Amino acid sequence: MAIGRNQWAIAEGYIPGSSTGPAPAMTSHETACILNAGDREIHVEITIYFADREPVGPYRVSVPPRRTLHLRFNELEDPESIPRDTPFSSVLVSDGPMVVQHTRLDSRQAENALLSTIAYSEA
Amino acid sequence: MAIGRNQWAIAEGYIPGSSTGPAPAMTSHETACILNAGDREIHVEITIYFADREPVGPYRVSVPPRRTLHLRFNELEDPESIPRDTPFSSVLVSDGPMVVQHTRLDSRQAENALLSTIAYSEA
Amino acid sequence: MAIGRNQWAIAEGYIPGSSTGPAPAMTSHETACILNAGDREIHVEITIYFADREPVGPYRVSVPPRRTLHLRFNELEDPESIPRDTPFSSVLVSDGPMVVQHTRLDSRQAENALLSTIAYSEA
Amino acid sequence: MAIGRNQWAIAEGYIPGSSTGPAPAMTSHETACILNAGDREIHVEITIYFADREPVGPYRVSVPPRRTLHLRFNELEDPESIPRDTPFSSVLVSDGPMVVQHTRLDSRQAENALLSTIAYSEA
Repeated sequence: MAIGRNQWAIAEGYIPGSSTGPAPAMTSHETACILNAGDREIHVEITIYFADREPVGPYRVSVPPRRTLHLRFNELEDPESIPRDTPFSSVLVSDGPMVVQHTRLDSRQAENALLSTIAYSEA
Repeated sequence: MAIGRNQWAIAEGYIPGSSTGPAPAMTSHETACILNAGDREIHVEITIYFADREPVGPYRVSVPPRRTLHLRFNELEDPESIPRDTPFSSVLVSDGPMVVQHTRLDSRQAENALLSTIAYSEA
Repeated sequence: MAIGRNQWAIAEGYIPGSSTGPAPAMTSHETACILNAGDREIHVEITIYFADREPVGPYRVSVPPRRTLHLRFNELEDPESIPRDTPFSSVLVSDGPMVVQHTRLDSRQAENALLSTIAYSEA
Repeated sequence: MAIGRNQWAIAEGYIPGSSTGPAPAMTSHETACILNAGDREIHVEITIYFADREPVGPYRVSVPPRRTLHLRFNELEDPESIPRDTPFSSVLVSDGPMVVQHTRLDSRQAENALLSTIAYSEA
């Protein structure tokens, strides 16, 4: 069953530049969890906004029908990788309904810290 | 008094495979807190979505009138238990209004970390 | 300027029964932050829902015009205090618009953990 | 592409008065991440609400077109700095659509803790 919306924004974004603990589970990362509960593949375009330069994108990912994609911003490389220790925001636009949640694991110190929130959505 | 919606989605899902500290309070867990503030029992069907295989479900739980259920995904067993250290998403559909909040306690390291967010809802 | 809604629900609720560090700042606590940005005092009724017994309430608090109240559930005592280490949910209903955010400080272990989310609202 | 709303509220606010670890990355801070994905500069007025005195503001910030601003409340100084260890709330009003997310890094103890949530919005 399709659930969700086509446009999402995550105002907070920051990939910590260092990590503690075994990779990849404990590597500091910034994630957009994307659920496609519908019966058609969706195509998502992601644009990254910065504080002091023009946005970069679109990054393109697809999510097959009835699948989830836990997308690590750390792994985006085309058109360019996202700099570490740099504030950013992201906008995700798809051609079908999706649900987006934002999560960070910060393992710069010995004990990890977590944050998560539903993203902002428009129809 | 009834409050809430009938359809909810949690795009983030991940049960850490290890824990530190006394069980069950400090066992790593992933929780969907479900509030039924209305005067009728509600019946909830939960479907779990994965990255690389077909969804599993429905899992079925009931919440009596005027009760809350803090459901640990760790404890779902029928039709099958949810694998650890594996990204997933969930969709919860009920036959009456409910409010759903997502919380994780991650105690893989010595000090626990917490995340929580309201889930995404549709009428 | 008035902003917000009259009905809010927090599906997650849990007051850790132990704490580490100096009180009251580092005492484990569960908070509903209530903003009344309007020009009239608002009167809020809070009902607490449990897993296995009838709800308790209403607890009553007032928030003066143009004030915020960071209400610790730990400190609610009338009609009865809220048990520790016990899952609960809460519904907050006011006679004027308010904004409600849910935060927990968990200091059961040496290093504190935090969670926060906007609550679920209806008009 | 413009996305977002013009009015946002963050009911939770608290700048921890102490920190552990190297500044500024590990300094305890309270942040409003503001995304302006549109093609016009936006002008944001921020009002801070307290528990026991009249609100302070407006603080004024601008966000250029296609930029994000990760605004640390710690750094607001005009009309006055925000006291530490003091509960507050904030309302942000702009003349164009924006998306606002609230994040705190709490490094009072040796290991940092994080919280984040989308703020409450109105059109």
